Amino acid sequence: MARYDFASDNVAGAAPEVMAALARHNAGFEPSYGADSAAARAGDLIRALLDVDADVWFTASGTAANALTLAALVAPHEAVIAHEYAHIATDETGAPGFFGAGVGIIGLPGASGRIEAAALANALNKPEEPHWQSPAALSITQATEFGAVYAEQDLAALIAPAKAAGLKVHVDGARMANAAAAGFDPRAVGRLGADIIVLGGTKAGGSPTEAIVLIDPGARRRFGARLKHSGQLISKARFLAAPWIGLLEDGAWTRHAAHANTMARRLAAAMPFPLRHPVEANGVFVEMDEAQLGRLHAAGWFVYRFIDGSVRFMCSWATTTEAVDEIAETLKAAR
Amino acid sequence: MARYDFASDNVAGAAPEVMAALARHNAGFEPSYGADSAAARAGDLIRALLDVDADVWFTASGTAANALTLAALVAPHEAVIAHEYAHIATDETGAPGFFGAGVGIIGLPGASGRIEAAALANALNKPEEPHWQSPAALSITQATEFGAVYAEQDLAALIAPAKAAGLKVHVDGARMANAAAAGFDPRAVGRLGADIIVLGGTKAGGSPTEAIVLIDPGARRRFGARLKHSGQLISKARFLAAPWIGLLEDGAWTRHAAHANTMARRLAAAMPFPLRHPVEANGVFVEMDEAQLGRLHAAGWFVYRFIDGSVRFMCSWATTTEAVDEIAETLKAAR
Amino acid sequence: MARYDFASDNVAGAAPEVMAALARHNAGFEPSYGADSAAARAGDLIRALLDVDADVWFTASGTAANALTLAALVAPHEAVIAHEYAHIATDETGAPGFFGAGVGIIGLPGASGRIEAAALANALNKPEEPHWQSPAALSITQATEFGAVYAEQDLAALIAPAKAAGLKVHVDGARMANAAAAGFDPRAVGRLGADIIVLGGTKAGGSPTEAIVLIDPGARRRFGARLKHSGQLISKARFLAAPWIGLLEDGAWTRHAAHANTMARRLAAAMPFPLRHPVEANGVFVEMDEAQLGRLHAAGWFVYRFIDGSVRFMCSWATTTEAVDEIAETLKAAR
Amino acid sequence: MARYDFASDNVAGAAPEVMAALARHNAGFEPSYGADSAAARAGDLIRALLDVDADVWFTASGTAANALTLAALVAPHEAVIAHEYAHIATDETGAPGFFGAGVGIIGLPGASGRIEAAALANALNKPEEPHWQSPAALSITQATEFGAVYAEQDLAALIAPAKAAGLKVHVDGARMANAAAAGFDPRAVGRLGADIIVLGGTKAGGSPTEAIVLIDPGARRRFGARLKHSGQLISKARFLAAPWIGLLEDGAWTRHAAHANTMARRLAAAMPFPLRHPVEANGVFVEMDEAQLGRLHAAGWFVYRFIDGSVRFMCSWATTTEAVDEIAETLKAAR
Repeated sequence: MARYDFASDNVAGAAPEVMAALARHNAGFEPSYGADSAAARAGDLIRALLDVDADVWFTASGTAANALTLAALVAPHEAVIAHEYAHIATDETGAPGFFGAGVGIIGLPGASGRIEAAALANALNKPEEPHWQSPAALSITQATEFGAVYAEQDLAALIAPAKAAGLKVHVDGARMANAAAAGFDPRAVGRLGADIIVLGGTKAGGSPTEAIVLIDPGARRRFGARLKHSGQLISKARFLAAPWIGLLEDGAWTRHAAHANTMARRLAAAMPFPLRHPVEANGVFVEMDEAQLGRLHAAGWFVYRFIDGSVRFMCSWATTTEAVDEIAETLKAAR
Repeated sequence: MARYDFASDNVAGAAPEVMAALARHNAGFEPSYGADSAAARAGDLIRALLDVDADVWFTASGTAANALTLAALVAPHEAVIAHEYAHIATDETGAPGFFGAGVGIIGLPGASGRIEAAALANALNKPEEPHWQSPAALSITQATEFGAVYAEQDLAALIAPAKAAGLKVHVDGARMANAAAAGFDPRAVGRLGADIIVLGGTKAGGSPTEAIVLIDPGARRRFGARLKHSGQLISKARFLAAPWIGLLEDGAWTRHAAHANTMARRLAAAMPFPLRHPVEANGVFVEMDEAQLGRLHAAGWFVYRFIDGSVRFMCSWATTTEAVDEIAETLKAAR
Repeated sequence: MARYDFASDNVAGAAPEVMAALARHNAGFEPSYGADSAAARAGDLIRALLDVDADVWFTASGTAANALTLAALVAPHEAVIAHEYAHIATDETGAPGFFGAGVGIIGLPGASGRIEAAALANALNKPEEPHWQSPAALSITQATEFGAVYAEQDLAALIAPAKAAGLKVHVDGARMANAAAAGFDPRAVGRLGADIIVLGGTKAGGSPTEAIVLIDPGARRRFGARLKHSGQLISKARFLAAPWIGLLEDGAWTRHAAHANTMARRLAAAMPFPLRHPVEANGVFVEMDEAQLGRLHAAGWFVYRFIDGSVRFMCSWATTTEAVDEIAETLKAAR
Repeated sequence: MARYDFASDNVAGAAPEVMAALARHNAGFEPSYGADSAAARAGDLIRALLDVDADVWFTASGTAANALTLAALVAPHEAVIAHEYAHIATDETGAPGFFGAGVGIIGLPGASGRIEAAALANALNKPEEPHWQSPAALSITQATEFGAVYAEQDLAALIAPAKAAGLKVHVDGARMANAAAAGFDPRAVGRLGADIIVLGGTKAGGSPTEAIVLIDPGARRRFGARLKHSGQLISKARFLAAPWIGLLEDGAWTRHAAHANTMARRLAAAMPFPLRHPVEANGVFVEMDEAQLGRLHAAGWFVYRFIDGSVRFMCSWATTTEAVDEIAETLKAAR
């Protein structure tokens, strides 16, 4: 039977703290659609984690969380600036265009998923014309799609000019826990002026849940109706809030991410193939040819060739040292 | 503290069979986005329940399940025929228009949420013109928004002329379990020619999950991409499939609905206010004035005044006889 | 051969002043997409006519002009309040929902197409909920679909509470010329606080052109891109601007509308069928049964049975007294 | 005063044959929304020109004609294959995404705007996944954005594999007249299996009008409603049909395009800057640096730096030999 341990960080189940919270908050009757007590508590924990004044909502899909918050920041005839390999640009089947009624994405280059400041400056300086979609928001992914982590000053160097040009700032924090475990202060994004943060719960050990953190006052307006209108307001909403209580009440969110990062470093240390990107979070990206990847697949381990041509190994809260050591052995044989 | 027992059928948690299935399927690594083993098993159980050849997908929101399947059946410049008080027409914040890029809804009258055959005939006979949206699908809700249950021959009398006119048929089965528990054969909808069935899990005792049952071959095409594009493809998808295993493997889906229906009949029997609709499923709709409703609210019981002006009491798998008897006493005092 | 003289006010060609302006502005090379000299001149004439500080753009379709300006004022999960028989609600094939990504319309009653102030107050007082689309704009049609003309104080009684509730105000002025010819001051709408006015050129004797008058500063932002994005930025744009010069430079816009209104009154005076609505602009709406309408059609005159069941006779700049007298004779025979 | 003669082929007015046809068809009353006699006649002329069995409709905007026909061929979660520099990909402000509810575009390389057959084969072979938008249509531009003209066998080499893979074929023929004048048989596109052709009238000497030629039977369904829904059904539609009668009845469409092509060759022959693309239609693309372009602008001639970095000079029916010779002199001085 194929093993998916390293195929993604969403192939793991939910962490024990999450399952316990689900069971705990399953009892009794609760108002639906987000007015439940778990939602209130989870919102408080998230505001504290990020140190922001914000409305907090939950969705079951990170793609939806990204796409609908971008639609809240940008008009259909405008565009979002993002890394050319950002999840919203390459891996969401055009969802931002759907939620945003044809909103555009301006993809910028940059090593390991970090946007180059010079490329951003160019994009901001392009004159406005009716013939193309001018940017109205900057979307930043932390940690990046390639397992890199922006330093706070690197983020500041992107956010400051974007805000100065009148853009809103969106943070795709699907793997913010891994960034936090790597030393990044999650309060930095709010401090630097982010308008909306999508905070990842699913990959951090949650059952399906992502938090939408609305800092921008304009974006908060009638957001419940926006969610419902776009099919994202869940009736038994406590199932999306409770996992956050399990993740944040005793630090599991960061603790599990730290474990995932450690596993990635362990795999990187044993890796017989050249690393394509620095291993700063929970992913290891290496250079393998088709024959080598074929041998790994034949040995029963499923992993993906990624957008940039590298092969991706993702670790999660559930990754074991045994699995790391076992795949490392297989990789050596596959070389 | 306010009591929400009768506010809706989504104020209950998940049933024990569901929580057990979630725990059981949480173990180990599984492919994401619907390729997990729970999805395969749940799909088989649903195909057997409905006796259809179909692709089965899952969403966390019934609104999304309805809206995106309607968008799969109807072009943006066309319309869906539905009861004027159908959930898609009155309670989904325009979601069908969002998913369908401005798709229209033609609302028809009919007692207790059942569409009148004569009104349907009128709508089907209206000549086509570029100036309005002509119908391309019929959407039927079973059980209806007002707790009524279509008999099979009543459905046949709607579906047959719709199919003859070239329309597709969509079934909103958010409360199909309650209809089944009331004696309706869930295999009837496929037999009569339904093209897509949305089968309710959440209100039947599930954690958030609705099954999308695609019978129409054309609608199956690239449906995974359609889900992802519209923010409805969940990464840890086993959390949407496992509840169905808990609900269907040992008959909990019907058993819990039968309990809910029984509770509704018990409440109806004790009800001191005039019933507005026949009590055939799990809802009781009564005539109360504002003062009477105010006294009920003041006594701590929260229920809604509904679209048709009646006051709605919903029962679920979790409703207790004690609660029914208790609210009945309060209602007598509130009269 | 069928005669269409009274079928609509768009069955006429363009008035001589318009054809002359088209010919005059056809000469030479001009920048495209609205930067032409005709656009500048036409914009000035329209700003003067309405006495507003505004950006002015042109579209070839009144449906598009309405739908895209509503989309500029209202978010997809919000709604527009309009008369239940407004063109946007009944005769635009769902275009507002398309341009507005599922934006809703709240239809209000009122005699002869004028919105009732009490109904508006009710709509404004409805509490906000995630489950329905709350209003963000009021759309008013002047003259109304039924040939009535709002008095300025009647408009004030609608616009003032809407603005006080935070709504934007949209004016569908497809037949503003007829209202102006009936004594309504076209400067009143801006004075009362309209945010966007769609000013009708086509029905006023133009070739296809409607003016979009953007008063609201927020709505002006990147409007050229909004037009292009929604397929409404015409390359040889001088063809949409020049007609306005023909219509406004010497008063043809009002003069032709006054003629159309006079023709309507002449027809009303000779009409053997009961009038359904007051004849204040260029339309005559009467009560005829199917047999009577059939006899009129059989006599070669094509007119429509309208949304409210009445039969509509529209006059335009091109309607002749001979045609009025001729159809009046036929109507007497058809009775 | 700046001269725009070469800025685009839409800076010219309408040709005399078009103005005469507009005047001729302006007389009398005609049914609106496309049921006029000019529409019937223009449709016949276009069907004959292209030798196809097709429904023919008209829009005032080429962007709209492209975007809405792509939306008729492709579902929102699918994509259109086009040249990476096709007008739909680079110059329509995201309109295909708006009309297509987030439809994707897959841009392929190829010299001078012609798609490379090998790149198409790659795109067709990419496996389908829910995570990206798989292609459902191929869009071809004839003549290309860079003034090149596909030979019939080159088109066959693209269309045949696309059709074999189940894709629909869309032709952006905004400059089909120039291709025809260059020797391309306009009947070839239908013969090769095109499903929808957008035939350019505006750039061929028309007032604003593009013909939508629907060959695919499925795409014809309720197309009038599709147009109205998307704000593209013009009321006084004779103004969009009549120009085609002027253009096609006596061959003006090809004759004017031949003149434009001749002017382009004359300019190319006198051009002191290196040509970037072959001059096969009515455009001349050259390599100029910023200083050189600045000197040309300073001399009063406005032209654009184009998407590929070249500077574009477009000729039209109205371009004079005097203007060509004059700008050629200026260009020599600007070198």
